[in-house]
Amino acid sequence: MKKNKFGLDMDASLAAYARAKEMQAVEAVGMDCHIGSQLTSLDPFLEALDKVMAFYAKLKDMGLPITYLDLGGGLGIQYDEEAPPHPTEFGQALVSRTKDAGLTLVLEPGRVIVGNAGILVTRVVYTKDTPSKHFVIVDAAMNDLVRPSLYGSYHRLAEVQEKGREVRTVDVVGPICESSDFLARDRELPGVESGELLAAFSAGAYGFTMSSQYNSRPRAAEVLVDKAEAKLIRRRETYEDLVALETDAL
Amino acid sequence: MKKNKFGLDMDASLAAYARAKEMQAVEAVGMDCHIGSQLTSLDPFLEALDKVMAFYAKLKDMGLPITYLDLGGGLGIQYDEEAPPHPTEFGQALVSRTKDAGLTLVLEPGRVIVGNAGILVTRVVYTKDTPSKHFVIVDAAMNDLVRPSLYGSYHRLAEVQEKGREVRTVDVVGPICESSDFLARDRELPGVESGELLAAFSAGAYGFTMSSQYNSRPRAAEVLVDKAEAKLIRRRETYEDLVALETDAL
Repeated sequence: MKKNKFGLDMDASLAAYARAKEMQAVEAVGMDCHIGSQLTSLDPFLEALDKVMAFYAKLKDMGLPITYLDLGGGLGIQYDEEAPPHPTEFGQALVSRTKDAGLTLVLEPGRVIVGNAGILVTRVVYTKDTPSKHFVIVDAAMNDLVRPSLYGSYHRLAEVQEKGREVRTVDVVGPICESSDFLARDRELPGVESGELLAAFSAGAYGFTMSSQYNSRPRAAEVLVDKAEAKLIRRRETYEDLVALETDAL
Repeated sequence: MKKNKFGLDMDASLAAYARAKEMQAVEAVGMDCHIGSQLTSLDPFLEALDKVMAFYAKLKDMGLPITYLDLGGGLGIQYDEEAPPHPTEFGQALVSRTKDAGLTLVLEPGRVIVGNAGILVTRVVYTKDTPSKHFVIVDAAMNDLVRPSLYGSYHRLAEVQEKGREVRTVDVVGPICESSDFLARDRELPGVESGELLAAFSAGAYGFTMSSQYNSRPRAAEVLVDKAEAKLIRRRETYEDLVALETDAL
């Protein structure tokens, strides 16, 4: 918290609640705490919760009518080999520590809900072997899924149709004109070929929402798969969409 | 070149030209070379050019009708304290080395043309002082200008109305819910106040084109300033724009 823009530290918070208590038009009814993102262990949550509950005791002593506790998001999902706690485990730990406190809990577990509910499907455009690397060039790029470029994030990649091919170590790259355009580096992948489809997993969170039209690339379609049925829920963009908001002032 | 996805190395290129020469339907008429981006010295260009010209001699010996040389982009601009060569200097150096070669030069100096022709104007939403840092929170975010988050890039920031205020060291951050949402860190800036405008310079290249709607943020308007006249050339997006392509399949 010290180095980033969010929130107030404990001392500043206490002063803010004290001030709120003096204000006729403000009623402080809740506490909010967010300790980070993609956490794969319960410990930091429980450590934070202990601090918040001690803080809550102070607020009660001050006579503040606190009834809400928002613990934010942060619960991790499995991208690679992580083994984050199951939401049930998280919930049980929270309940055991808060059940007698008279608080309504608010949680924001967006990534847990949608992260692994979405995949990005992309087509292999070309494979290229150089003396130092093998490249798999796909038609999705950093504009479609920026997490690898932006955070160095891992997204599992797999052939849509498994064919039992030998695994090679490849870079999976997009068609955008910069070297930071990649989906995976030094990744073990079956020997896929031009024309076939790959799936990039865990693309349901921080995927389409962070997509851009960089390199004048219309954005992908979004399809909802509901059991055996597939429904288009956002149509593929066209070049006309890219310029639709431009005016003729020029 | 060895570690990135672009191009062919010299040996592979020579083999490709030899193969093209044997193909009736292909006529190889040019060479293309791109050595990188935001270069602030002529040396790498001239070194590459020497190699390309030696390569060109080989292609001529092979009898190939090469008449085009595309040297790509890459010429840097001033973001901070860089002192890149002026395009004139670059041009003179190229001409002196190629003028007797009978080649048509093709160049792609996009950033040099538009990079410093654009600014991002943003309003200060709030200033926040913590024991360890001062924050200036603005209404532009990483979705509007991603280069600081993505590349750690420097963009000069300045108050739109200079008021002779004392300089402080601040983080300039946006309203998006992640700590990588910033325009500048540990930046010396006059003591700006809520409500006033800041300009982020050098936003004409890799600015709007890389913008996203992350956090459901409609994108900024684009305004062309032509001498004393300002013309809206792309209107500000609305929330309706964000969902316009979604279908009612749900």
